[in-house]
Amino acid sequence: MNDNKRAGELIRFLQPIILVLSFVLVLSAAMTIPSGLLALGESRREVEAFLVTGAACLLLAFLGFALTGRRRRFQVTSKQLYLITVSNWCAFAVAGALPLYFGLPGLSFADAFFESMSGITTTGSTVLTGLDHMAHSILLWRGILQWVGGIGIIMLGIAILPFLQVGGMRLFATESSDWSGKSLPRAQTLIRNIGVVYITISLLAAICYHLAGMGAFDAVVHAMTTVSTGGYSNYDASIGYFGDKPGILWIGSLFMLLGSLPFGLYVAAMYGKRDQLWHDSQVRGFLAFVAVVVLLLSTERVLHSDVSFMQALTQATFNVISVITTTGYVSEDYTLWGPYAIVVFFYLIFVGGCSGSTAGGLKFFRLQLAVVLLRNQLRLMRHPHAVYTTRYNNRQVTDDIVRSLIAFSFYFGFTIAVLTFCLSLTGLNFLTSLSAAATAVANVGPGLGDVVGPSGNFSSLTDTAKWLLSGGMLMGRLEIMTILVMFTRTFWKT
Amino acid sequence: MNDNKRAGELIRFLQPIILVLSFVLVLSAAMTIPSGLLALGESRREVEAFLVTGAACLLLAFLGFALTGRRRRFQVTSKQLYLITVSNWCAFAVAGALPLYFGLPGLSFADAFFESMSGITTTGSTVLTGLDHMAHSILLWRGILQWVGGIGIIMLGIAILPFLQVGGMRLFATESSDWSGKSLPRAQTLIRNIGVVYITISLLAAICYHLAGMGAFDAVVHAMTTVSTGGYSNYDASIGYFGDKPGILWIGSLFMLLGSLPFGLYVAAMYGKRDQLWHDSQVRGFLAFVAVVVLLLSTERVLHSDVSFMQALTQATFNVISVITTTGYVSEDYTLWGPYAIVVFFYLIFVGGCSGSTAGGLKFFRLQLAVVLLRNQLRLMRHPHAVYTTRYNNRQVTDDIVRSLIAFSFYFGFTIAVLTFCLSLTGLNFLTSLSAAATAVANVGPGLGDVVGPSGNFSSLTDTAKWLLSGGMLMGRLEIMTILVMFTRTFWKT
Repeated sequence: MNDNKRAGELIRFLQPIILVLSFVLVLSAAMTIPSGLLALGESRREVEAFLVTGAACLLLAFLGFALTGRRRRFQVTSKQLYLITVSNWCAFAVAGALPLYFGLPGLSFADAFFESMSGITTTGSTVLTGLDHMAHSILLWRGILQWVGGIGIIMLGIAILPFLQVGGMRLFATESSDWSGKSLPRAQTLIRNIGVVYITISLLAAICYHLAGMGAFDAVVHAMTTVSTGGYSNYDASIGYFGDKPGILWIGSLFMLLGSLPFGLYVAAMYGKRDQLWHDSQVRGFLAFVAVVVLLLSTERVLHSDVSFMQALTQATFNVISVITTTGYVSEDYTLWGPYAIVVFFYLIFVGGCSGSTAGGLKFFRLQLAVVLLRNQLRLMRHPHAVYTTRYNNRQVTDDIVRSLIAFSFYFGFTIAVLTFCLSLTGLNFLTSLSAAATAVANVGPGLGDVVGPSGNFSSLTDTAKWLLSGGMLMGRLEIMTILVMFTRTFWKT
Repeated sequence: MNDNKRAGELIRFLQPIILVLSFVLVLSAAMTIPSGLLALGESRREVEAFLVTGAACLLLAFLGFALTGRRRRFQVTSKQLYLITVSNWCAFAVAGALPLYFGLPGLSFADAFFESMSGITTTGSTVLTGLDHMAHSILLWRGILQWVGGIGIIMLGIAILPFLQVGGMRLFATESSDWSGKSLPRAQTLIRNIGVVYITISLLAAICYHLAGMGAFDAVVHAMTTVSTGGYSNYDASIGYFGDKPGILWIGSLFMLLGSLPFGLYVAAMYGKRDQLWHDSQVRGFLAFVAVVVLLLSTERVLHSDVSFMQALTQATFNVISVITTTGYVSEDYTLWGPYAIVVFFYLIFVGGCSGSTAGGLKFFRLQLAVVLLRNQLRLMRHPHAVYTTRYNNRQVTDDIVRSLIAFSFYFGFTIAVLTFCLSLTGLNFLTSLSAAATAVANVGPGLGDVVGPSGNFSSLTDTAKWLLSGGMLMGRLEIMTILVMFTRTFWKT
């Protein structure tokens, strides 16, 4: 009897998790359709890969629906929500890996999983070579993974939160990536509006790319991986393939930037509140920061090489924006600009875009708040009894936001440090280990050095390193603490 | 009239600063005596170097005493105290540089200043080569610089603070490197007792080194640079010169450890309160941490090379303790143990010893507190309304201690990041720039890579890099914020 009761409890606990998982599997199955159709014109191998994946996802989804019965509304606890979030991204990564595993001969499952995780987390590190001659269905699949991953992360950050707060759960309260969006319309409308904005920007990007000289297929895939700040390209040379068409680099720069601004503010702009976007502290600070870094790098380069200013500016703009928005396209090997460039690009890996966007990294508002807090702390040394209240975007920054911000920054650095050490145990050198860890956790894409740098490829790493980096990408994408909380004893009690 | 009044105010403001400076110059002059006497048996060049330095210091000191008149007691503001602290260390660095500049042919002033700053901050990075054949008077001078710098930093951390707190000034309240020592006897007795402990441990170290096979002169100089966790050796190969005498390595390990524990607790032990030392959370945590790292490194090395366990243990113990206590002796090139060793030693650079010791770095109690705080933050994600009070060594850790601790950690990392970037502009590669910056700010000594690594030497760096690193060592030694506060507008207002 007691055993039966426990089993019943466990099933009730798992039901909402399984339900959401089933929906994600249906979505994954649906995602295989465009690639599958494209594969019909290619070899039988690709058709089967997408067919098998789609069928497997649907089968599992129906199994899930059967287990959860007809109930569609659940009152969930914070524990269940964490599990839902993490299990969904894992399931999505596995589903994404299957077509690559079945469709590409000689690819290990570690490779396929890495590529898929790099896709859905919009990281953009790749283990595939010979992209220039790869089946279009596979290339499209990589683009779809990033595009869906991109909107997934916006939704997670903006639209799911109100529901979480209603339930009294603070899944993101400790990440505070979204406390700026509280006053927006209700969840469902917001989700729809974000979707409209995301699709509109993606379409615009595709059209612009096409007008600038990309073929239709390339334009679509690159639009998907630009707006999601993902960075998968259809060429081994990344965007460098289009190096003779500077227009493409400028269009890429523009749309990567658009992908890294808060999508909630676009929705506000749709409703006529355009000044919210222009007067947002994060947006203004972020754009100013990008401009300063680009100008300094171009000037330094013009002074110490025979590159023209326009060319230096184009390349600096594109690659700085690519790294800072955590996209990860490469138009040329910026590590050859000089030792200082390696340091600058290493730092840029950490910055990230704005909150509520598709970008990863620390996010710019965290850096802005850190500057304010640290300045206040210096002032306190001379006037210990002064009280400084911190305001950001006309809101007061309360102590628990500060604490969570700081905890996040520490865990961010700590995760990279541990990952670096583990990677070094697989035999990678210091620069490779450190930059690979940072680029994975910040969801950027390229690291530094010969192996994982802008001219390198992650394929030569050991399987262990690939699994480690896949874990790092997932942790970074879910803002680390969402995963770490599961390793506390408190989490599993009751 | 108004101008006269202002000039009078300025003089009154400067008087206590000049007075303390004059005392430090007298001390510097006194320090030249042992080396000067030793130089009598050497060439005329060294005798003159020490004579000129001693005379110049005395002259300036008397000028200072003349300016301050007979007054010996001042009520100082926090602004004056910051200026006193920083100006003294700068003056001390210049005084330390003169004998090197005059005594060593071909040495630039940037070199001499770097060597002196590295000495008094007990960093131990050197730009000198050919130490094995250098005049003993110069080698003794380097030892004296580190030995006096070592006790200087203990005094600054432990004995000056009570006075600062009486005056309502919180020079170190934001660094909290000493709040564990409040309950100790009054300042003067404490200073004397610390001096006794420091001299006793140094004497013991010299005797042990001598018994283990070092010549008398080497034993004295190495004792001075061991207990101060400084790391200057009389040989280009550092302690590696004595590589055939493992006894010396074990004695070095022991006394480096002793130099990195809280000296206030030794004084308590002198008064019979021995359990304060054994039950101190920082001491226990620190020793346990060292033991774990040493065992892991030795085991890893034994498993993947043909080195015997005893040899691996001896080398791991010595080099880990050398870096973690921020001493910086090198007994063999540990970066050759494998890629993982580079990462481990890079991390160890940051750790540092205990508060109230001669060691630099972040200090171990900060790491312990960070772990507690971060764990609490994860727990809060599941139970947002729980209240966790943090206790350390049976004291409650209040919010302002937490804030200052966090601010310090950020500034520590930020200083290293800026310094790394500046060094990379001088043409150094990533690993060299980053590890040189870290090793300077943490006051360790050796960095990583060919140039500044355990087998390298700082002499090949540009003068710009040497000045930058000298600044970094000073900032690290004065716990960064002491210097940064001077760059705020608030500081200079009244």
